[in-house]
Amino acid sequence: MSTSLPPKVAVLGAGSWGTAFAKVVADAATAAESNRRVVLWGRKPDAMAQMASTRINEPYFPRVKLPDNLEFTSDVEQALHGAHIVVLAIPAQALRAQLEVFAPLLEPDAVLVSLAKGLEMGSGLRMSEVIIEVLQGNLVAIDAPLETISGVTDRVTVLSGPNLAKEIIVEQPTTSVVAATTLETAQKVASICAANYFRPYTNTDIIGVEIGGLVKNVIALCVGMCEGKQYGDNSKASVMTRGLAETTRLALALGGKLETMSGLAGMGDLIATCSSPLSRNHTAGRLLAEGIEPDQLHTVMSQTAESIKSAPVVAELARKVGVAMPITEAVVEVLNRTISVEQLAPALLGRALKSESDHIS
Amino acid sequence: MSTSLPPKVAVLGAGSWGTAFAKVVADAATAAESNRRVVLWGRKPDAMAQMASTRINEPYFPRVKLPDNLEFTSDVEQALHGAHIVVLAIPAQALRAQLEVFAPLLEPDAVLVSLAKGLEMGSGLRMSEVIIEVLQGNLVAIDAPLETISGVTDRVTVLSGPNLAKEIIVEQPTTSVVAATTLETAQKVASICAANYFRPYTNTDIIGVEIGGLVKNVIALCVGMCEGKQYGDNSKASVMTRGLAETTRLALALGGKLETMSGLAGMGDLIATCSSPLSRNHTAGRLLAEGIEPDQLHTVMSQTAESIKSAPVVAELARKVGVAMPITEAVVEVLNRTISVEQLAPALLGRALKSESDHIS
Repeated sequence: MSTSLPPKVAVLGAGSWGTAFAKVVADAATAAESNRRVVLWGRKPDAMAQMASTRINEPYFPRVKLPDNLEFTSDVEQALHGAHIVVLAIPAQALRAQLEVFAPLLEPDAVLVSLAKGLEMGSGLRMSEVIIEVLQGNLVAIDAPLETISGVTDRVTVLSGPNLAKEIIVEQPTTSVVAATTLETAQKVASICAANYFRPYTNTDIIGVEIGGLVKNVIALCVGMCEGKQYGDNSKASVMTRGLAETTRLALALGGKLETMSGLAGMGDLIATCSSPLSRNHTAGRLLAEGIEPDQLHTVMSQTAESIKSAPVVAELARKVGVAMPITEAVVEVLNRTISVEQLAPALLGRALKSESDHIS
Repeated sequence: MSTSLPPKVAVLGAGSWGTAFAKVVADAATAAESNRRVVLWGRKPDAMAQMASTRINEPYFPRVKLPDNLEFTSDVEQALHGAHIVVLAIPAQALRAQLEVFAPLLEPDAVLVSLAKGLEMGSGLRMSEVIIEVLQGNLVAIDAPLETISGVTDRVTVLSGPNLAKEIIVEQPTTSVVAATTLETAQKVASICAANYFRPYTNTDIIGVEIGGLVKNVIALCVGMCEGKQYGDNSKASVMTRGLAETTRLALALGGKLETMSGLAGMGDLIATCSSPLSRNHTAGRLLAEGIEPDQLHTVMSQTAESIKSAPVVAELARKVGVAMPITEAVVEVLNRTISVEQLAPALLGRALKSESDHIS
């Protein structure tokens, strides 16, 4: 990357979160009076050409004019050329295949920012682990020096928080967390996405941030089921609280930190997702409670509810590391149709009177 | 108290939470096939006589038939005679004066359960501290033995959690926390209120449970203001998360425990209160954001929003123990009219980019 070029950020994936986050980065550049270029890449040439001419992402945000300093392309080589920060806004289960195409085109020092949430089916890997594996595999294939290969881990970061795209696109104020192996790298990423309405905090707990971001979808599915059964805010708050407790147990067992789970990427993201009727996972739970069969959900929802795929993978990971996750297990049982949604509340509430910390620790 | 009498629980205060909790205790006795008597006391003779004849608390729950095994009285001596557990469902600022009347009538071994949430104005004491002070004062006045006086602390318990009375009265499933100096006493209280739809956990962190229950009202006021300004779920989740972080800092400084704050009486109660349009504190915040002056709130709300009184007392306590509580301070400034609701979001979001743990620890 030539030093004479202006700094550049590429956002890969023009779905709802990719588009909203590209707007945040573009607005952040304007707020900082920076000449930084921001390029949004999507795979459909027609759609990206239309976006470039109308500055509107019609399928997701038909009423929002995207900022003038945001560029659009369907040419990934062009998007990645000279980009010192590359944001991956790709669905969890598609990330590996897509990144294998992108990897050879990345600038050698590019910092990657994962917005994807989920565990890879089959491998059970977190998204940052998938990214590191693909990037290192690519470097091994071209016989890169060992220190370059091992240095990949320091270039992979994740961003997560109470970040419903439909609210961010209309500039409602919120916060987020950027995690990297070093605070310096996290700050580098935070500095390109600090807009008036978007406040990024930094953190070095990648594991905690990723676990928070993915298990919350499973808990949101359960809260959606409670809502479908017309339970009130007490019930939902109980499920969220016990849900965060089991998420925290899993994160700690994997090496994550307690503070992360009590923070914006843990509690904050969980509350936003569970509160919002806009959340896909929440909606999926509500539909299940209203009698839609698990294997019919795709016929009534236009977008994927990641948790349908993630829940069994989370449950498997929890069993592997010996952590009790009763809410996740109950959700998996509903998805497998071994219990009904009606049996969920008794299953969660009807145990012996216990000391609260028996469950937390 | 004669051992030949059946066990008896008195619930003092026939407002919304007192009535709903009395129903929980009565339903718990039925579920346990116990001959335990449950008596609800209220100060208005006419209202209690009507309740006894109709089994309906007309002003609060006009559509709910209260259980057959619940007794009603306006005679406090009759309510307290033989009661081995006494539940105090009295508003925070009225508790001391009322308890001074009740104290001489209590059975000497009665366990007290505080449902009151707030800090006493003037003294800044938590409700359990007020109860202990009044009970010990009464024993000193009658020259009781020293060990009886010091034993009072072990008889004072608190109950708090995601417990919106309007949902519990219609038996929507929820959880709660009972805290006492010993797990045995907490379990004794838990055992009399374990109904099918109400699951009490136990805990020995009285400080944490009380701080969680009172500061959440201040945070709910702030969330209500965000709602009044039409901010979305991201913003509200951020305020709740940062709000619990500052509540946790205060609780830890006073000797409370981290696990309590991540639990049902901390996070759970906070989420339920902040999510519910039924919550008074939440409503008060919304009205303030819509332009009602702080000193005019009582003219548009039928019930008190405790946080209006508690917020400045919490802020003062935080300053005294050297804990930063930016959300609470901002709420106090809005109540004092030194900042407007419009200035709240920039005040909370517009600080320098920070590491998340700078705020949590």
